[in-house]
This record gives sequence, C-alpha cells and structure tokens, in this order.
Amino acid sequence: MKFLNNINSISDLKILKTSDLPFLCSEIRNFLINTVSQTGGHFASNLGSVELTVALHYVFNSPHDKICWDVGHQTYTHKILTGRKDKLSTIRKFKGISGFPKQEESEHDTFNTGHAGTSISQALAHLTAFKLQSKKSQHAIAVIGDASIASGVAFEALNHAGHMKLPLIVLLNDNEMSISKNVGALSYSLTSAINTRLFRKWRRRSLKFLHWLPIIGPISERLLLRFESSMKSIITEHQFFEELGFRYLGPLDGHNVKKLVKFFNKLKDPEEPVIVHLVTKKGKGYAPAEKEPTFFHGTKPFDKNTGRLLNINSKIPLSFFAANALSLLAEKDKDICALTPAMSEGSGLQTFSQTHPERFFDVGIAEQHAITFAGALAKTGLKPFLFIYSTFLQRGYDQLILDIALMNMPVRIVIDRAGCVGSDGETHQGMYDYSFLSCIPNMKLLSASSPEELMNMINYMKDFDKSPICVRFPKADFDTDIFLKWQKKYLKLNKFNPFKSEIVENGEDILIITEGIMLETGLEVKKLLKSSNISAEILSLKTIHPFDLKTIEERIKGKKGIFTIENHSLERGIGQSLFSKINIPQFKIIYHSFGYPNKFIEHGDVLSLNKKYGLNPDSIAESILKTLKNSIKPKVIKSA
Amino acid sequence: MKFLNNINSISDLKILKTSDLPFLCSEIRNFLINTVSQTGGHFASNLGSVELTVALHYVFNSPHDKICWDVGHQTYTHKILTGRKDKLSTIRKFKGISGFPKQEESEHDTFNTGHAGTSISQALAHLTAFKLQSKKSQHAIAVIGDASIASGVAFEALNHAGHMKLPLIVLLNDNEMSISKNVGALSYSLTSAINTRLFRKWRRRSLKFLHWLPIIGPISERLLLRFESSMKSIITEHQFFEELGFRYLGPLDGHNVKKLVKFFNKLKDPEEPVIVHLVTKKGKGYAPAEKEPTFFHGTKPFDKNTGRLLNINSKIPLSFFAANALSLLAEKDKDICALTPAMSEGSGLQTFSQTHPERFFDVGIAEQHAITFAGALAKTGLKPFLFIYSTFLQRGYDQLILDIALMNMPVRIVIDRAGCVGSDGETHQGMYDYSFLSCIPNMKLLSASSPEELMNMINYMKDFDKSPICVRFPKADFDTDIFLKWQKKYLKLNKFNPFKSEIVENGEDILIITEGIMLETGLEVKKLLKSSNISAEILSLKTIHPFDLKTIEERIKGKKGIFTIENHSLERGIGQSLFSKINIPQFKIIYHSFGYPNKFIEHGDVLSLNKKYGLNPDSIAESILKTLKNSIKPKVIKSA
Repeated sequence: MKFLNNINSISDLKILKTSDLPFLCSEIRNFLINTVSQTGGHFASNLGSVELTVALHYVFNSPHDKICWDVGHQTYTHKILTGRKDKLSTIRKFKGISGFPKQEESEHDTFNTGHAGTSISQALAHLTAFKLQSKKSQHAIAVIGDASIASGVAFEALNHAGHMKLPLIVLLNDNEMSISKNVGALSYSLTSAINTRLFRKWRRRSLKFLHWLPIIGPISERLLLRFESSMKSIITEHQFFEELGFRYLGPLDGHNVKKLVKFFNKLKDPEEPVIVHLVTKKGKGYAPAEKEPTFFHGTKPFDKNTGRLLNINSKIPLSFFAANALSLLAEKDKDICALTPAMSEGSGLQTFSQTHPERFFDVGIAEQHAITFAGALAKTGLKPFLFIYSTFLQRGYDQLILDIALMNMPVRIVIDRAGCVGSDGETHQGMYDYSFLSCIPNMKLLSASSPEELMNMINYMKDFDKSPICVRFPKADFDTDIFLKWQKKYLKLNKFNPFKSEIVENGEDILIITEGIMLETGLEVKKLLKSSNISAEILSLKTIHPFDLKTIEERIKGKKGIFTIENHSLERGIGQSLFSKINIPQFKIIYHSFGYPNKFIEHGDVLSLNKKYGLNPDSIAESILKTLKNSIKPKVIKSA
Repeated sequence: MKFLNNINSISDLKILKTSDLPFLCSEIRNFLINTVSQTGGHFASNLGSVELTVALHYVFNSPHDKICWDVGHQTYTHKILTGRKDKLSTIRKFKGISGFPKQEESEHDTFNTGHAGTSISQALAHLTAFKLQSKKSQHAIAVIGDASIASGVAFEALNHAGHMKLPLIVLLNDNEMSISKNVGALSYSLTSAINTRLFRKWRRRSLKFLHWLPIIGPISERLLLRFESSMKSIITEHQFFEELGFRYLGPLDGHNVKKLVKFFNKLKDPEEPVIVHLVTKKGKGYAPAEKEPTFFHGTKPFDKNTGRLLNINSKIPLSFFAANALSLLAEKDKDICALTPAMSEGSGLQTFSQTHPERFFDVGIAEQHAITFAGALAKTGLKPFLFIYSTFLQRGYDQLILDIALMNMPVRIVIDRAGCVGSDGETHQGMYDYSFLSCIPNMKLLSASSPEELMNMINYMKDFDKSPICVRFPKADFDTDIFLKWQKKYLKLNKFNPFKSEIVENGEDILIITEGIMLETGLEVKKLLKSSNISAEILSLKTIHPFDLKTIEERIKGKKGIFTIENHSLERGIGQSLFSKINIPQFKIIYHSFGYPNKFIEHGDVLSLNKKYGLNPDSIAESILKTLKNSIKPKVIKSA
C-alpha cells in the first residue's frame, strides 16, 4: 500500500498529486475489503463512498471546513483518512472505534450521527454561525444518501436552507437511484459546463442586461431563469431541488476521483445553495457486494475470496419470527397489513412482501408518515402491523400520540431492537421505549421472552382491537426450528393471555421479576442463588404496561425482596415504574432494579456491555446476595 | 338566511342549485362572523375556506367519500354543513363542540386532527383500503394548507403517495402564498383545459401512437411527458409536485364556488394522484381580518363592526415574558439566537425578530429540523433558544435525543403551553413533556412558577452550558408591568439558582410540593387548610428533573404527609417519579399526587377542567383533609 501506508492524517493526503488519488482509492478499497471481511460491519456503502470521501478531504479543509455526514455508516474511508486507519479493525467492537461519526473520536467528526436526515440541518447551522461570526472562508458540506434525503427531516432542512440562501453544498450520494431513474445516462460534461465560472459570468451579465430594460426587466429575468431551469429539467428531471431554492448540479460519476477533485475545486464557493448529485455504486470494486449490495449492507465476517459468511448457522433474528408468523396468519386473515419504514430486510418482512405484496408497505425512511398511515389504516378496519426498531419509533412520537393513541386505533406495533443493540451503539440503542410509550393514554405494551412467546403475541395482537398494542423484543438470534414447530401447532393455541404475568419457576425467599428476554438471565440468576441456599421465584411480566399488579402483589407476599431485571434504561424504566405502583411500605420489603444506567450506552458486544453494567447473571446474583446479607431488617435500596 | 336556515345536513346542501351556492357561502360567512365575534376561535382561516368546503361537500359524498382535513381549525363551515350549525356557538367551550374535527362528533370527521401534515397519510390509507376491499367508487381528498404541506410528515406522505399511484386528490389551500409566488397571475382556464377529458384523451392517444414506434417508443414517451411537464413549468413553476408523482392542477380561485364545483365534478376520478392548487384569502369577506389575518388567526370575542377585541387588558402570555426577556439579554450577548417552528406570534418572538433579525429563525412547521438545527448551532458555540409548544416538542423527539442530548449540547428549550391548554383541547394538551423528557440522559427540566421566575430562568439558561436545559410553563396571562419591573432590576440579579427548590411558605403538618404555576394553587390550598387547623408547608420545585432531593427530603422530616400538585398527566408524571425516588418507607408518610388522569383531556376553559378533575384548590384541600382524617396510622395512597 504505497500511498495508504503514508497517510496518517489529512495533511498526508493533501501532499499527494491528483494523479495519485486513483491509486490511493484502490488501496483504501482493498484495505476495507481486508478489514471488514474480518471484523464485519457496514460494507457496501463504504465501498461506494471511497472516491467522494478522498476528493472531499483533498479539496476542503476539515475541520476548518465542516463535512457533515448523514447517518454516517459510510464514513470508514473518512475514519481511515483522519487518523483512525490503525483502529479500523476495532470498529463496532467493545472499546473500539464507533461504526458512526463520533465527535469524541476526532475533531473531523462534526456530529454524532446514526439516524437519517440530519446532515443538512447541521451544515446549515455551521454556515449560519460562519455568517454571524463573519467567517467567510469556511465551507460546510452535507453528504447525504438518496434514501435519507427523502426523509421528512431532510426535506424540512432543504426547505429552510433554500430560504436561507447560504452557500450550502449538499452532496447527494445516490447509490440506488431511488430518486432518479436513468440519470446514469446523462453526461458529466454538460453539468460541468453549467458550473464553470464562464457560465456563471455569462448568466450574471445576462441578468444585468435584462435589468436595463425597464418594467420588462424583472419579468424577463424570471422568464430567463425559468427557461434555463426548464431546459435543464428536460434533460435532468431535477427541478425538485431547484424549486426548493437549490441549484442542481449533476449527475456526476461518484467514482471518478480526479474529476470529482476538479469539480469540487470549481464548486468551492457557490453563490447559492447547491445540490451535487453523485452517482455511486454500492459495493463498488468487490464483485459479491456489487451483486448483492443489500446482503453486504451490514455484514458479519466473511471469506473475502468467496464472499461467503465465515460462520453460517441456522439462527434467525427475533424479528424474522414475528414477520414469518404474521405472513402465515395473513393467509387466513385478509385484513392483516404489514408496514415498515425502509427496514424490510432488517425486519424480516421479505417473506411477507412476497406472499402478500398488496398488503405490504415499505414507505421509505418516513417514520412519521408510517405511523399516521398505520393509524388511518386501522380506522378503515384493516389490521396494520408496523414493524419498526425501538430507536426509530422515536421519530414518529407525535403521530403515535395523536394519530394512534388519541383515537384508540388498534395499530399493532412490532418493536425490534428494543434494549441493548450491541455494536451499532449509542444512536441505535432501544433504551427508552417503555418510558416514552407508558405515559401515552390507551397504550398497551408487551415484551416477549422467547421466539415462541413472540409468535403467540403476534397471533394474539391480530385479534386484539381494543386499543393500540406494541410488543418489544431485542436483537437476538434463535433456531429456525422454533418457527417450524410453532407453525404446526399455532392453530391449536388457545387462551394465551399476554396480559397475565407468568410464574415461570416457583421459589420462597425472593421474587425476581423479569422483562422480556431477561427471563433467561433471571433463570441463570436463580441457579446461581440456589448454591447460596436462596430460593428465587421467577416471574415473567409479559405485559409491561399496564402491569398485571394482581399477580405481582400476590407473589410478593411472604418474600424478603423483589428484584426486577429489564433490558431498558433504569431511569423512568420498568422497575422504577413498577415499584411506584406497588404498595412497598405495606409489604415491608427490600427492592432493587437491574437495568442500564441513565446514560447513552456505547457500542460493543452485548455480553461485554452487560458485564460492564452489572447485568450479567453473575453480577446480578452477587448483588442480590450482598443486598440480602446487609439487610438484617427490611431496608430499601433505591433504584436508579 | 334563506339557504342556511334550511341546511341541517349534507343532503340539504345537495338539493340546492349550483347557482344558489354563492348565496349560501355568503350566508355562511355572515354566520361565522356573527358567531366567532361572540365566541372567539379560529377565524381568518375559516373565512378563507367557506367556498372550498361547500364545493367539496356539494360534489363528493361524505362520509362515503373521505374528506380528510389537515390541522382542522378551518373546519367550521364543514361543521355547519354536517349538522353542527346550532352548536357552533359552543365551539371550544367546556362540553361544547371541539375546534377541530373529532370522530366522536360526526361520521363526517374522518380523524381527530390538530397537528400539521397528517391529511395525506390519512387519505392515502383510505384509498389503500378501498383498493384492498375493491371499493372503486369511493374517493379520498386531503385538504391541506400551504404551511402544513411543507412539514416533514406531509412530504413523506406525498412521496409515498406518488409512488403508490392511487387516485388521491390533494387540495392545497394556499392562503399565504408561502410556497408559490405570483401564482395569482395565472389563469384559471389554462389549468381547467389541462384537466378536461379531451386533453386526457389526446394525451393517451399520443402515448399509444408513440408505442408503435419500436425502441424509440418508450424514450419518446418519456420525452413527451418531460416536454409537457417542462412547458407547464415555465408557466406554473410547480414541477415540485410533478416530480413527486403528482399531476399538478392549478392555481384556481378558491373563492369561486361555482367554478370549483365544475372543476371537482370533472376531477372526481383522477387517473393518478393529483394536487389541486387553490388560492384563497385568509379573512376573506371581513375587512379587518383580510387586513390583519395573523391577528385574526385565533381570536377572542370582538366587536364585529369595528374588529376590536371586546375585553382589552394589559396582560400578556407567559411566552411573551420569556421572549421579551431574551430579546433584552440578546442586546449584550451576541451569541443568543431564537428559533421557532412557525410560531413566532404565538411564542411572543415578534420583538426579538425585529431587534435581532439576523439571529431569529422561523423554520416553518419543521420541528424535527428546528431541533437538529438548534443542536448544531449549539455545537458552533452559539446559544440557541428554541421556543416551542409542549405538544409540538413531541414532533422532534428523536432529534431531541440524538442531536441534542446524546452530544450534551447546551440547547435552551422554552416550552410554552405545558400542562392544560384549555380550549384547544386534546390535540394541544402539554400533558406528557415531563414523562418523555425525564427519561433522556443529560436532560434538565425547569418549571416556572411566575413570570418573574420564568425571566430569571431564561437569564440563568443563557449562561448554562453544561447540558441541554428546558423550562416549561403553561398558557397563562400576566400583567405587562411585571416585565417592565424585571427589566430594571435583572442586571442586579445574582445567585438565582433554579436547581434549588424553594420553601415558599413554612408549615408544620404536611408538605405540599408544587410544580410550576401550580404554586398558586398550593398557596390557595394552604389557606383553605388553615381553617381546619392544618399547617401546610409549600415547596416550589423549580427544577423538576433532576429533583432537588436534598431539600425535599430535609423538609419531609416531621411531616404527616406529602402531597404533590402538578400541571401534567399523573401516569409517569412528576409526583409518581418523585415518590419513586424518595425513601417513602423510611419516612413512614402518607403521600398522594394531584394532576390530570391518564386520558386525553378534552377542551374547555381551564377552571372548568380543573374542577372536573379535582385540581381546583377546594377539591385538593378537601381531598387532603379526607386523606389525613382516614389515616390514623401512616398509610399509603397510591398515585395514579
């Protein structure tokens, strides 16, 4: 790696000749293939953004200039160029570097990102500050993908930016052509010509000339502008951006690094907001990823020669159990619909989308619309199931309150990635859903403790029409077999009632109350306590809002202590809420909650994180023992 | 009122002749002027939507066809036509009809609305259901204003609707021309011609013909479509919608009811999604409202002859105190910025916008962008103050968590309309902000008990840079004088610490803990209890997250009971949270929370609502006495 070996910071990049850059890009690409095939991580999008990242850092001066990344899982090249090359093998690992931009890691990371649509707002804020502080020589660039730019927040920002008229550069990294069809057929040179100074000069002069003509002047100017923009539209179809106050430039080949450098150098000081449309290819330069970009969007370690995963097993994520069960149920129940905001793969809905295409709706990165749409579908008598990650449910909170709960619409919400998500880290943790859902009137919230229970809950939710109902479950894999077995017996299921908490194992000394999949942990803790002669009863909540207080209070009687274990943030969490509803003084009982602390939980594997935060069975058992030992007479341990 | 007198339902409208409709509209307008001048309510927008509402109901068959209103404060004519004429004088009053569509009131109200941008999602859901249920003769129309359509959620819905290709009709009620300049100059006839069947036939035939030419066919078709759309764009500037998959029709005169009827009749079965651009005038037909549409957006009772308010007083809302204080502070501190999502009047920011225009940002109905933008402004070192209503803060929840709290950005959030809002009702209640904010790491939340304290808090927040910080306060008016007095002495202020709770009045028997403006209620309760020989201590929280537990626990000692009073929902509310953090068993104390029940609180005046929900001083005092009497030995009253 002749060039890459010498790059340890941005300044090492700046001394290269433009003609060296294609070779550097090729080396970076190889480095990415070598590293990510071993570590796993976001892959296809990073292969697609090598050249644009190199060109941006070559032309602009970060951190003086602000390069604002949207979502940010495509920033591996950015991390390599900004001094984190040697740490790339630790990416997304516990104590390693983050898979997303993170200001704590580098001054070149302008913002901690992870969710779609924020880069334009960010870049606009920088330009606003430059203007207020009279820093004219600084630039701000938002780099945003074609899926992100269609999200509501990005549109709101575009609309405001067009109005503000600051020299914002929006780089549209279009790797799926979901916005623009056939743009690849358009020539680079045409756009390039539009952008030259000559053209700008000519345009300015024409406008000046037109102003000489009194009265007709302003009208002609508008006509000229419209004509110019309409002529371009015949070719480019991109008046969309022009009408939002942006000058549209493109499409350009996002993999021609030399031309990108030339282009960015010309573009550096736009007179108005511009949108630069780059066409890139997901997985570029690695054949298996070019062929299957979705599979290689986020990948586990793979054999770089064959493109095959190193560890193949028959496990599937919990969301797939929910989605496959729903697909099965939808065969008999023609009212069932499935919705997802751009997560059809992640949510396991491929099967549903194939078996029931007319009842499957992928609305794009549009959580607000997804939720209002689901509420209105419920109003028509259909049975909408919204599949969404816990962290993305936050994006449609107002719609959840007003367009679902207020009218008590029976929307079924399937909340994936609830609790600790592991390697995606801070921006993707599902740590708050109980808190923000349990304050909404009419809301019901279940938590599944196993794939089988999850499928039973989905089956139950199908016929539950009294109110909105949600089920939460974490990112966790289980054997496919479990679905096959369930498929054979689900018709014989009856009297499954998620609103009744379950005593999974009896015990005499203490009561351990578990939420969702933390049941597994609770059972482990019981085993550990047994060796210290503590007999723990294990209660699985099943429904976490509202609580089945009857069962819980019944089982508290005669116990020395109650302990809750939740895959959620402790502050305003499930344990805290439960203890505020139980008549603790009456029971004169020790109580304590185990969950995540009130901070943003970093990335890493779930086991390491649980160990760090005392949520592994050993730590919990030890903590319970200590608590019981110190409490000769009943005493209270405050949660959180 | 020759025509209006006979209209008690939609069917009475249908039997009129088209030529009668202008007279009916005129009668409705007079009826609106007479009624709203006496009752108060949304006014200018209702005068602007008379004709479009009459035309819609005349042509379409509600509730068979679905007319979906966005926001919904412009539906007074809709309410008049759908059997609620006689109840219009009770609008927004306690036990009267709602100021917004409400499905409980009428089968013609398809959805309970109040917030912007939901109508397109709704109408799309109805069409989806019609398609799945093979109900081809039913129509769905979204009626949306020019401000609403620029909100993120509306854009997300447009984008999805363009993709779905269902025969959706979006009626853009453009009364401020904020999207389109100069559209008024365009002719009605041109658009009308585009929409005639003749034109559609011609178009279809041209396309068929082009298909005969092999290879060139598809290309030519696209070229034809582009050419057609570009030609129109030269005149109409509305390719924005065309690029989202909509056929743009307009602009039309939204006050010509006969032409609207003709147009809707032709339009009834569009072959693709269409957007119909209506130009209307806010306040149409009532000179004072045409002149000052913003003043007459929502009004108190006024003299219909002069347009002057009936009761003029020198009181201003709390938000004005916050905004005026900020404007004053911004003179010396050049880093202070003020942001509002389309609420510059409501938030009292007019003065700020005039004194510091370069640091004032009204971003439109774009709460998500507003919050991300604020986070990024804080990152640059500026001091952004975001003015927002509690209910609208829900619309940027994800951005609040990720773009502000995650990076611990010192954004200052000024939360107006927290707690009970009164006559706007269910969709505008600020009942959940404590719940959804207190679970976010790094968040600090204050609650102001008076205008003076609010201004002191604003002053404090200006220099607080450790984390995001919010202050909440309700919709309530106070004397302007208070600001003038504060203005003279704020420079001498020192050691004001909002994080320390305040003992407002000492007492021996019980502790009453009040949140924000409920301090007033607490003091009233103290007086009432005194006559029963109960001495109450009054503690004003000032900071509600995190709690000043030190002060609170100190003051609990020796008391018989603690009672909290909050202007918030009880479930997951302030009292519940506080009691989960206080070592209640140790204190062996009675505790109870007063607040709003866990349901959506209806509209009405605040006094009546507080009485209904037991939040007036009399009810609270009575309830406290009863509790103390029944509790011979310490006993727990569960909150919520």
